[in-house]
Amino acid sequence: MSKPLIFISNDDGISAKGLRALVEVAKTLGEVVVVAPDKPQSGKGHAVTIKFPLRLTKVEVFDDVESWMCTGTPADCVKMAKDILLKDRTVDLVLSGVNHGANTSINILYSGTMSAAMEGAIEGKKSIGFSLDDFSSEADFTASKYYIEKIIKRVLNFEGKQSLLLNVNIPNLPLQDIKGIKICRQSRGKWVEEFSESIDPRGVPYYWLTGRFESLEKDSTDTDLWAIANGYVSVVPSNFDLTRHSQLDDLDYLTSC
Amino acid sequence: MSKPLIFISNDDGISAKGLRALVEVAKTLGEVVVVAPDKPQSGKGHAVTIKFPLRLTKVEVFDDVESWMCTGTPADCVKMAKDILLKDRTVDLVLSGVNHGANTSINILYSGTMSAAMEGAIEGKKSIGFSLDDFSSEADFTASKYYIEKIIKRVLNFEGKQSLLLNVNIPNLPLQDIKGIKICRQSRGKWVEEFSESIDPRGVPYYWLTGRFESLEKDSTDTDLWAIANGYVSVVPSNFDLTRHSQLDDLDYLTSC
Repeated sequence: MSKPLIFISNDDGISAKGLRALVEVAKTLGEVVVVAPDKPQSGKGHAVTIKFPLRLTKVEVFDDVESWMCTGTPADCVKMAKDILLKDRTVDLVLSGVNHGANTSINILYSGTMSAAMEGAIEGKKSIGFSLDDFSSEADFTASKYYIEKIIKRVLNFEGKQSLLLNVNIPNLPLQDIKGIKICRQSRGKWVEEFSESIDPRGVPYYWLTGRFESLEKDSTDTDLWAIANGYVSVVPSNFDLTRHSQLDDLDYLTSC
Repeated sequence: MSKPLIFISNDDGISAKGLRALVEVAKTLGEVVVVAPDKPQSGKGHAVTIKFPLRLTKVEVFDDVESWMCTGTPADCVKMAKDILLKDRTVDLVLSGVNHGANTSINILYSGTMSAAMEGAIEGKKSIGFSLDDFSSEADFTASKYYIEKIIKRVLNFEGKQSLLLNVNIPNLPLQDIKGIKICRQSRGKWVEEFSESIDPRGVPYYWLTGRFESLEKDSTDTDLWAIANGYVSVVPSNFDLTRHSQLDDLDYLTSC
């Protein structure tokens, strides 16, 4: 059997340590092609580049791995790979990350990492975004690599037919302190006190987006926030169909004449 | 009873004709506060601005409506309104748009318009994003205004308790040709042939994101794509919980030792 073709992107950019960790694991399990942003793109959500042209430049950053950097967003990277670099090939798995920083709860919405994975899923590919709960550019990905290998192997070896978009978050703990993998749902939560005000030299205020994240369901034990706070790798099966199906029958008052 | 407080943002920017149309309707139904991007932000998805500070500038663009422009994305606009301008007030309704161009199917993911509405929903506010199926900056919003008024009134008058995030798309038709409002689900579809290649004066290729949208379920009559193609205003109840709940029990193979 030929090696699976694994496409990888991220949002921290081509030179991020987390991307290197993911490539190192994936190249032992398949043929890897990387297209990553040429600069950090954190918080870019599912942005795409409409008003500017995009560039792709081949780079030699990983041994034996075809790698490109792209001037666009994470979603742009996946689109360019699909339409230009890999248009005559069949990709078996789309991976994104490892993000420097968790993408639990609603942070999936702001996450370029998960948007890259979501682009893969829209194309019908099994797709996984990985994030480590440590924002440092020097974060330690040792435990991440162990669990990433486990998860990729299990997904590649799964014999059933199944579409897949996984949001995987890894707690920032030494390997021996991680308790295992937990399938969970996205926790409810939100950002509060989001802006810090400063005054510029001309006396005009300006604001930095900051704040702290607040869980809105601290007692639930089936959420991603609970899992990583309690030493588990969280895996949230995710969706790009945003329809709230349960509400479809409750909106008759909008259509009455 | 005091007038409801209606917050409005968009992604086409403070000077867009579609924003003006929405403000004109909303100000007849409540007190309106606007924070919109100072420049077009189409395709920005749920991006937020992390690496640059943000500015808010008061502008006089709508009669009798407090209006601000913001240097950030649509999601930034809503966050700044919540945390700075309206932090001591209770918003009754969050509106976004009217977008110049439809946001049906997966385009909700790329849409700054819907991300602004989603920010409202995350804060627990009833939130609605409106889009007209016409990309022109000179689009005609006459029919849009009629249906927007209908929908806002019905939402404000609804007496039950209900969280709400609606993705409303309006077909580009004269009012008399629109058949009514249809509650639908997000259609499956994807973009194909997404890049157009050009060669710069130095002989190096560059790419424009373009392509055409392809429905993946042309025969379904319960989708947003079907609705606007058949003369209906589509209303998709939407969600910011991206968990694929139906798959939570199908992933045991990932957790086995």
